[in-house]
Amino acid sequence: MSVRSGAKFSMPGMMDTVLNLGLNDESVEGLAKQTSDERFAYDSYRRFIQMYGRIVLGVEGEEFDRLLETAKEWDGVTADSHVSPDTLRRLVLRYQDVVARHTGLPFPQDPWRQLQGAVEAVFRSWNGPRAIAYRVRERIAHELGTAVNVQAMVFGNRDDNSGTGVGFTRDPATGAKGSYGDFLVNAQGEDVVAGIRNTEPLSSLAGHFPKVDKELHAIFERLEHHYRDMCDTEFTIDQGKLWMLQTRAGKRTGAAALKMAVDMTKERKIKLSKAEALQRITADHLDQVLHPQLTTHNATVIAKGLGASPGGAVGRVYFTADEAAAAAGRGEPVILVRSETSPEDVHGMIVAQGILTARGGLVSHAAVVARGWGKPAVVGAEAVRITGKSFIAGGVTINEGDTLSIDGSTGQVVVGEVELTIAQPPPEFDQVLEWADEIRQGRMAVRANADTGADAKNAREFGAEGIGLCRTEHMFLGEDRLPIVREMILAQTPEQEEAALERLREAQKADFVDILEAMDGLPVTVRLLDPPLHEFLPRTEELAIKAATQGLSDEERALFRAAETWHEFNPMLGTRGVRLGVLKPGLYAMQVRALMEAAAERMKVGGKPIVEVMVPLTVTREEMGLARGWAVDAIAEATRGVEGPVDVQIGTMIETPRAALRADEIAEEADFFSFGTNDLTQMTFGFSRDDVEGRMMVAYLEQGLLKRNPFETIDPSGVGELVRIGAERGRRTRPDLKLGVCGEHGGDPESIALFADAGLDYVSCSPFRVPIARLACAQAILASQP
Amino acid sequence: MSVRSGAKFSMPGMMDTVLNLGLNDESVEGLAKQTSDERFAYDSYRRFIQMYGRIVLGVEGEEFDRLLETAKEWDGVTADSHVSPDTLRRLVLRYQDVVARHTGLPFPQDPWRQLQGAVEAVFRSWNGPRAIAYRVRERIAHELGTAVNVQAMVFGNRDDNSGTGVGFTRDPATGAKGSYGDFLVNAQGEDVVAGIRNTEPLSSLAGHFPKVDKELHAIFERLEHHYRDMCDTEFTIDQGKLWMLQTRAGKRTGAAALKMAVDMTKERKIKLSKAEALQRITADHLDQVLHPQLTTHNATVIAKGLGASPGGAVGRVYFTADEAAAAAGRGEPVILVRSETSPEDVHGMIVAQGILTARGGLVSHAAVVARGWGKPAVVGAEAVRITGKSFIAGGVTINEGDTLSIDGSTGQVVVGEVELTIAQPPPEFDQVLEWADEIRQGRMAVRANADTGADAKNAREFGAEGIGLCRTEHMFLGEDRLPIVREMILAQTPEQEEAALERLREAQKADFVDILEAMDGLPVTVRLLDPPLHEFLPRTEELAIKAATQGLSDEERALFRAAETWHEFNPMLGTRGVRLGVLKPGLYAMQVRALMEAAAERMKVGGKPIVEVMVPLTVTREEMGLARGWAVDAIAEATRGVEGPVDVQIGTMIETPRAALRADEIAEEADFFSFGTNDLTQMTFGFSRDDVEGRMMVAYLEQGLLKRNPFETIDPSGVGELVRIGAERGRRTRPDLKLGVCGEHGGDPESIALFADAGLDYVSCSPFRVPIARLACAQAILASQP
Repeated sequence: MSVRSGAKFSMPGMMDTVLNLGLNDESVEGLAKQTSDERFAYDSYRRFIQMYGRIVLGVEGEEFDRLLETAKEWDGVTADSHVSPDTLRRLVLRYQDVVARHTGLPFPQDPWRQLQGAVEAVFRSWNGPRAIAYRVRERIAHELGTAVNVQAMVFGNRDDNSGTGVGFTRDPATGAKGSYGDFLVNAQGEDVVAGIRNTEPLSSLAGHFPKVDKELHAIFERLEHHYRDMCDTEFTIDQGKLWMLQTRAGKRTGAAALKMAVDMTKERKIKLSKAEALQRITADHLDQVLHPQLTTHNATVIAKGLGASPGGAVGRVYFTADEAAAAAGRGEPVILVRSETSPEDVHGMIVAQGILTARGGLVSHAAVVARGWGKPAVVGAEAVRITGKSFIAGGVTINEGDTLSIDGSTGQVVVGEVELTIAQPPPEFDQVLEWADEIRQGRMAVRANADTGADAKNAREFGAEGIGLCRTEHMFLGEDRLPIVREMILAQTPEQEEAALERLREAQKADFVDILEAMDGLPVTVRLLDPPLHEFLPRTEELAIKAATQGLSDEERALFRAAETWHEFNPMLGTRGVRLGVLKPGLYAMQVRALMEAAAERMKVGGKPIVEVMVPLTVTREEMGLARGWAVDAIAEATRGVEGPVDVQIGTMIETPRAALRADEIAEEADFFSFGTNDLTQMTFGFSRDDVEGRMMVAYLEQGLLKRNPFETIDPSGVGELVRIGAERGRRTRPDLKLGVCGEHGGDPESIALFADAGLDYVSCSPFRVPIARLACAQAILASQP
Repeated sequence: MSVRSGAKFSMPGMMDTVLNLGLNDESVEGLAKQTSDERFAYDSYRRFIQMYGRIVLGVEGEEFDRLLETAKEWDGVTADSHVSPDTLRRLVLRYQDVVARHTGLPFPQDPWRQLQGAVEAVFRSWNGPRAIAYRVRERIAHELGTAVNVQAMVFGNRDDNSGTGVGFTRDPATGAKGSYGDFLVNAQGEDVVAGIRNTEPLSSLAGHFPKVDKELHAIFERLEHHYRDMCDTEFTIDQGKLWMLQTRAGKRTGAAALKMAVDMTKERKIKLSKAEALQRITADHLDQVLHPQLTTHNATVIAKGLGASPGGAVGRVYFTADEAAAAAGRGEPVILVRSETSPEDVHGMIVAQGILTARGGLVSHAAVVARGWGKPAVVGAEAVRITGKSFIAGGVTINEGDTLSIDGSTGQVVVGEVELTIAQPPPEFDQVLEWADEIRQGRMAVRANADTGADAKNAREFGAEGIGLCRTEHMFLGEDRLPIVREMILAQTPEQEEAALERLREAQKADFVDILEAMDGLPVTVRLLDPPLHEFLPRTEELAIKAATQGLSDEERALFRAAETWHEFNPMLGTRGVRLGVLKPGLYAMQVRALMEAAAERMKVGGKPIVEVMVPLTVTREEMGLARGWAVDAIAEATRGVEGPVDVQIGTMIETPRAALRADEIAEEADFFSFGTNDLTQMTFGFSRDDVEGRMMVAYLEQGLLKRNPFETIDPSGVGELVRIGAERGRRTRPDLKLGVCGEHGGDPESIALFADAGLDYVSCSPFRVPIARLACAQAILASQP
């Protein structure tokens, strides 16, 4: 390749800049003579100096722009294209002066030196702040590196018999068959992108260039048949001749992806297999068709947080759960804005269209609850400063009742009402998931995390094949339950404790009946109480302040004492899970009895309950053996007199590094394992997600200290290794050990691939992630096949 | 063996009860006739029924005692031995009635049934609460099981030509050569132990039984030569004939153990090797000679906590650090009693003879600080209830100024002044450690954890070969430092932060000069700042209360805001260690500069500083690479102009499970690893030591859910496996990687054995544990040799 004749030089990735290299004083003279078009030659050279100066040499563009304005004044014209060749030639000299003044060196005349400078600029740009931020957002590894394309130059702006355009082989928005795109006569690529001139639709191309249009469509067909996919192309017409500059598989919306994948299985020349079609669909595609999206093109983004639960939401701002509930009662759409949320805010969250918090990470209370309900949420938007009934962000003040839009996918917060796309899965959605189910049948099941009958019903509609995690603590937090739980904690005698447990048992039993009914015939894994007891008590700080100011009632004093007794420095690593069971053995026995009485009741009416009792936070075989003993006794007691076999297993979470390492021993006492990868990640890294996600995760990702947020995608070489070790050692003891996962990672496609590889039998995720998990399981199985 | 003739039956372990089985109505008649001594026969039978009833059948002893008192009244005598044969025969019948009434069955007459009952009782006793508590205390595994000895019966209480005694082949208290023991004429073993009759010293035996005395001493000599150790024996003389009942290696004091071990290397017939002599010494032996002990025989123990730092202490009780310091200023010996201690109590702790806390575990602040200083401490004595200037425990009220004694080995708290033994290591102490050093030379070094020049000096005197952990946060807590640290945290501009860091650098440099001087020529590992920043700020709760009651000053408001900003839910898993460095890169650079400027200053005056910069809490290679970069720059800057090579390495703690698993990657950026087994244990188990040790550790140990407190002795199959993995993978990347450990486990002999086996180069522990670690390293090396 000779660069003397000009070369197109494109910077990959986000930059995608084209430099027309190889122009210099000498070659431009030649070009002017050769084309008999001085204007074209000097204008090309001017543009090249400006772009090269800015991109490669780091010379700010304003001076060039000012010089161009002056030139137009001089010539008395307003359009760039009317500047005279003579003026353009002088402009070139002035541009060269700007470069020389800024860099201390003349504008490089040697094409090879130009090329080398440009190549170096590309490699430099890899570590620029914009590129890093982009990679963090798009989850591209920082050490991947970049490449540089150099190709011969053609000119779409040579004359009116030239032009340039972008073309898709199908409609990337809808997936409809037939080409789609834009073009411009007498223009270069950047003119199409810059949006200064109005482009024409590709369908008008035939009117300008009938032969080229025919040729282009033949190429489109050839490309589709070759790549067996929709292609995105760039082309240039140079004096009537068509040049294809590049092609790649085109970006597409979720609906288009689904339609094209299904369509292409039916087309004779492409004939995708079902497996290939499945691999064309991503989790983002499904998310798009499952949730309405914000159309934020022209909106004012005032803050950006973490996209914690996908989908767009529009509503009026309220700052407390009570006010949110009241406004919703009046029929207003509500966006609940809080510094952070806690279980006390649940009644406000449930009525909100969307939730925005200033603090907290992707597994904060707000994020987890919102994801569980499939409700859009943006969390940890640190720019949001709340004071009373208003907040300031990006210099804008938003008061109570003002309208706000949030995008739970991108984390964007937008002033006013932004239009939403409609969430309407196309017909191909069910087709694709059916194919996915065929592939994973008998290999990898998908369950949901659900705590109530309503959640379970919802999950089943999304295709969940059971519940992998039913958290019983949520049953302890209801307004009618909390006082009983506190009675149990405050009990002074075994009799008082017993009495409180008895009342809780009645309440829990009713909850379990609902869940087992909703999941009839499918397994339901019930985790025994996990959180530390102080979560059911008031905060010591609040009571301490009240004690210092107003004084406390007798009851408050008792609660204060209990809260102090149960207070912990690091509750995540404190008295929770099975440790609670050891200190209060009646608690776990009560829960198992309630569950099995519910199962017995379901059996009486002809139901088929399948129960899995799950012990949390086990670290030793002995603990598991002890807990198993309580469960076995409680099961026997509760199912006395029940006819026929009762389908129940007893297993444990594997959520501490020790449990994973000693899975061989723990498997002696367990029928199944469920990897609790949230806590396992916390302990393996020493990351408290509540503390670390908000404060340092972004810094860690940006600086490349972590490739991924390990709470979103499982850390393959640390936490992932523990999952592999746990699976392998557990099965060594007990080859039929059932293995699953119930952390947030159960709904993340990349994590699912690791779980499939580790031999897990199922993943469990929030109901709204179930379709994505169904697809991802099938993709993981396909990927593992040779 | 025929049990008809009677059998001695001993219950092992703590019980060590002897039952004379095989007596029944028939055999006792025979015995009475055969010995022509009815009194002897019926008294033996009476005693047997009582002991068998109590131990095997669970019949309370009080009724038997009341019946015996009645019998003595009836006969008009006061001594048991004067009760008439006739009354004894009737007493036997009444005793049999008691048994029948309580058990519903007649007293068993069949000797085989008696034997079976006794054997079963032994096995039952293994799971009795006393036996479990004993095993927890003595760290004996619960699943070890027990054995039963049955041997033919002889009678020391047959007549005045009979007797019984216990004999040691050397003095177990001093180690002096020559036999030592007690005996009684006409008595059984339990009479010697019970202390009702005054025993005679073994030296008087020759006066009563000259032939037996000669025979016994011949046996003693034979036993010593056979076992090559001091033996503890029990013997009985039955009608002039000597029977040896049992022998075992005798228990001994620390001083005796040292003396005997050294003596026996010199004795021709025993000729212990140095290696054998070393293996006779335990950590407890060394502890005894290093610390004064309480002599608590007759003392009233009012509470029992965890023995957190060995040694006895006596002093007057004070409840605040200020009052303790004032009292010490008046020359009073002080016991500081607190619910728990914090860095603010340090000035009271340093002047106290001993420390007692009601809360906290073996790695609470009080325990760690006290062990560091070798100061006796009892922590987590939950029975101690403090109200203002007094506390109640065991029903006794102790006021400020009252005298109290504590034993930091056993955890006992005793009212009043208890005599202390004197801590005076015997001359053999140095000899034994010298042998230990010979064995571990070049294999395994012992360093100390020390934060100040004074600590370092002290450690060096105990034989430390360097500092394995110098915690720089303690340098931040001094009265003159804390305000500067707060300035740094509150800084609004980079300049303010810079200025505060500059002042800290000056202060830290002076500290480092002291330490490097004290450890001149030996390596000093300095850990960069580790704790979360909120540890340097006031507690939010205190400020919240003050805000609600009195209002806050501007400065307090700023501190409050900062405290809220840096507040964390789980600080153990929060923004600490190298994460702080990532958020505030100037901090670590400042620390390394201060350290290297100190080293340069030492070199200028001819010192030989050997510096190891240690990065805490690393989880990824990238983090370590970033921190290494800061350190390399700061080293270059601080040592510019220094002549000759500067001896400095850069390494990291391995204290998260992920760091251990990915040691291969982290080793690419590290010159050394130091396993922080405290935090590694916390994260591997999910145990926050502050929360878990006080609340649930005892329950877990008693119920056998854990064999050991993993904060005292490393958990071999969980945390220990991570240490092995970390060592092996680190060395795979870098065969010359230096490996050490700096957790509390570095001073625990069993843990040291695991570290030696994992190939570690050194252990580091608190200065007072250094002699123990020197011995334990040698023992571990010896144990690993075939």
